[in-house]
Amino acid sequence: MNKAREFDQSVVSELKALLGDRVSTSAAVREHHGKDESYFPYAPPDAVVFLKTTEEVRDVVNICRRHRVPMIPYGVGTSLEGHILAVHGGVCIDLSQMNAVLAVHESDLDAVVQAGVTRKQLNEHIKHTGLFFPVDPGADATLGGMAATRASGTNAVRYGTMRENVLSLKVVLADGRIIQTSRRAKKSAAGYDLTRLFVGSEGTLGVITEITVRLYPVQEAMSAAVCAFETVDGCTNTVIQTIQAGVPIARCDIVCDKTVGAINKYKKTSYRVAPTVFFEFHGSAASVVEQAETVQAIAKENGGMDFQWATKAEERSALWDARHNAYFACLQLKPGARAVSTDVCVPISRLAECVHETMEDVKDYINPVPLLGHIGDGNFHLMFLIDPAKPEETELAKQFNRRLVERALKMEGTCTGEHGIGMGKIDSMRLELGDDMMDLMRDIKHVFDPHNLMNPGKVVPLP
Amino acid sequence: MNKAREFDQSVVSELKALLGDRVSTSAAVREHHGKDESYFPYAPPDAVVFLKTTEEVRDVVNICRRHRVPMIPYGVGTSLEGHILAVHGGVCIDLSQMNAVLAVHESDLDAVVQAGVTRKQLNEHIKHTGLFFPVDPGADATLGGMAATRASGTNAVRYGTMRENVLSLKVVLADGRIIQTSRRAKKSAAGYDLTRLFVGSEGTLGVITEITVRLYPVQEAMSAAVCAFETVDGCTNTVIQTIQAGVPIARCDIVCDKTVGAINKYKKTSYRVAPTVFFEFHGSAASVVEQAETVQAIAKENGGMDFQWATKAEERSALWDARHNAYFACLQLKPGARAVSTDVCVPISRLAECVHETMEDVKDYINPVPLLGHIGDGNFHLMFLIDPAKPEETELAKQFNRRLVERALKMEGTCTGEHGIGMGKIDSMRLELGDDMMDLMRDIKHVFDPHNLMNPGKVVPLP
Repeated sequence: MNKAREFDQSVVSELKALLGDRVSTSAAVREHHGKDESYFPYAPPDAVVFLKTTEEVRDVVNICRRHRVPMIPYGVGTSLEGHILAVHGGVCIDLSQMNAVLAVHESDLDAVVQAGVTRKQLNEHIKHTGLFFPVDPGADATLGGMAATRASGTNAVRYGTMRENVLSLKVVLADGRIIQTSRRAKKSAAGYDLTRLFVGSEGTLGVITEITVRLYPVQEAMSAAVCAFETVDGCTNTVIQTIQAGVPIARCDIVCDKTVGAINKYKKTSYRVAPTVFFEFHGSAASVVEQAETVQAIAKENGGMDFQWATKAEERSALWDARHNAYFACLQLKPGARAVSTDVCVPISRLAECVHETMEDVKDYINPVPLLGHIGDGNFHLMFLIDPAKPEETELAKQFNRRLVERALKMEGTCTGEHGIGMGKIDSMRLELGDDMMDLMRDIKHVFDPHNLMNPGKVVPLP
Repeated sequence: MNKAREFDQSVVSELKALLGDRVSTSAAVREHHGKDESYFPYAPPDAVVFLKTTEEVRDVVNICRRHRVPMIPYGVGTSLEGHILAVHGGVCIDLSQMNAVLAVHESDLDAVVQAGVTRKQLNEHIKHTGLFFPVDPGADATLGGMAATRASGTNAVRYGTMRENVLSLKVVLADGRIIQTSRRAKKSAAGYDLTRLFVGSEGTLGVITEITVRLYPVQEAMSAAVCAFETVDGCTNTVIQTIQAGVPIARCDIVCDKTVGAINKYKKTSYRVAPTVFFEFHGSAASVVEQAETVQAIAKENGGMDFQWATKAEERSALWDARHNAYFACLQLKPGARAVSTDVCVPISRLAECVHETMEDVKDYINPVPLLGHIGDGNFHLMFLIDPAKPEETELAKQFNRRLVERALKMEGTCTGEHGIGMGKIDSMRLELGDDMMDLMRDIKHVFDPHNLMNPGKVVPLP
């Protein structure tokens, strides 16, 4: 792809006149902005701009639009689906310097942040208030990126995803207009929900520059529990019955026997090599004890073994340590490998069946295929370990993933619970939602971006 | 408005060929479908059809579109903002016979219903499962109407509004296509969130025919508490501190002294005539006691008086009886009156200030102006009692409401927390969201409904 040849260099001159040395066309900077955490090949932009204000974003958008140059918003590059790859060249809009927390409203339980603020930065900033922002996708992503990809993660089972936790957005549209999608009221029935339309739009409808997010009180107490099971059915049945019993689980994750094996090797631990569920409970001191006791009883009825639970901070950390290390431990199963991560999400009643069929399907894959997931939401990831130098390994993993997606769709699931569509799942989404839905998305895209300049090639098929 | 004269009667012939006697043009039926619970004048459709399946809706939409006749979806007519008034004539699509609960997935905590199922019908249907559907706008509205207007109500503080509780929709588009907006997975990051775009679209983008909603476990125990306060500040501060303390309030409503006075008169009770907050807590038996005790302590610090709480069902009902009777009690303050209900929602930190200024503004209104509201969400309603025979009284109420909306907007609030835009709040929404947002909504409307046939005159200004 020699996009740079076609790139109108006068764009760079105009950008430099506006931004001075906050424009870069150096190979190193372009390369850094042309790859993410996905398995997709490197696709650098033609130029990178480092912006500080919404008005600067508007000015850059106006320049790019006049020259018909693609624009790709960029946070910290932790996408797993190639969201930030400049597959059609263009200007990467790096928002990481837009990292001011603009307001924290303690009584209203919300905060207004610039798009480049990361979730950990926000939580550090509000630590003294007794509030926290719950959405935790693992990576320390920017809130702009998390809103744009409708991120979720371990806390979603109780606190929801970015869909539920964004109150309002400031967005620069492709024609340079700046909109605020909603006021700061906790709820509103005023007109079409454009906030939710931008949440998950992956930079294809406009550039999100500010986000108003919901905050939650840090509960008086937290407790954690870990339990191994003979079968994945035991895990899902325990979680289903726990939720039905009204226990407000805060986190609830599963790892498979292969993942536990990887952790044991990586951390020199000796956990039972079996499907294992990690729980976390938030509430009053009495309530978290009660919750853990309820889960222990339910787990026991479902073949739970080695149930451990803890209320003290250091004990909780120790219990969750295995889960937190799972990704890196699994990568070590094949040193030098990268992971092709799958992301289906099915109704929880079908989860065990979906996992069984999938495990059967992948049993002859060239490497062990560890599983980890957010069991309370029916969302799980397989890690296909591939050698990036061998494209045939990536291709093989993609074939397994295609079958997995088809299996999940047959069970009324989705091809992506939280990673988004990006470049690789457009066909899966068509299978999931049908041609008419795809046509509607394309028509909506056209309203916002008639020249297809906003992160082209992502979410919506090119015309 | 003599719309009927312009109405193409061949539409009725075609509809009758399709539906037989499930088409009505009788004056009584048209009149019944031409008014709702709002203060807007009667606006009957030219014909009413009673449909039973999504395919019938599609066929009717195709007939109406070919003849360029407006279509107005209708549930049970409990709108407070004129949503179902046929201000441009056309065909009323009555969905009340589409009242089948299609599936209940107990393990997945969701249900699939036709649009005409009411919330009480659903809750009755699932009673034996130990699950319930929480969104409660007061009226026994249809779930189709509730989705279309993004309804909420007393439980929203804990369980969210229709925005959070709709998983997927089946929709008939203006061009006759039938789409399913999402799969049944609990979360998904697949593409633009068209589910949320239809939630709150008030029938202007298509006809919702099926809804997949989230269900919740009925908790082991419920407790209720009622407390009077010297000031509205005392109420809001209690609620703010309660939420910040991490107490998961299930319901939390406020009534003002005038409302309590009206209740005392209507129910022959002797509650202290003062601002009063009603709480409801859901959880384990131990937890609801703990929650009520925490609130009692917080209320005491904020001038709470006559704190009462109860865990037994009959005692809880007795406590909440005053709140449940508030609307009708207030109507009795002026027998024969109708109510013009306001619906602003502000960040809770501004609620007391907003209520104070508003009370000062309305103190010389021709009748007492009672207040009731969902204090945990910052959403409150004033009831302006008007004589429907005197248009000047409605006009006066609307003037007060306009000032109230402007006040709420200055406090970062919204003109409608839960009633929707309908016909009367288009200008308020423009003030709230700005011209660019209105233009975007109009452009989106045009994608879905290029001939402006879907509930024209609502939400989006006519071209």
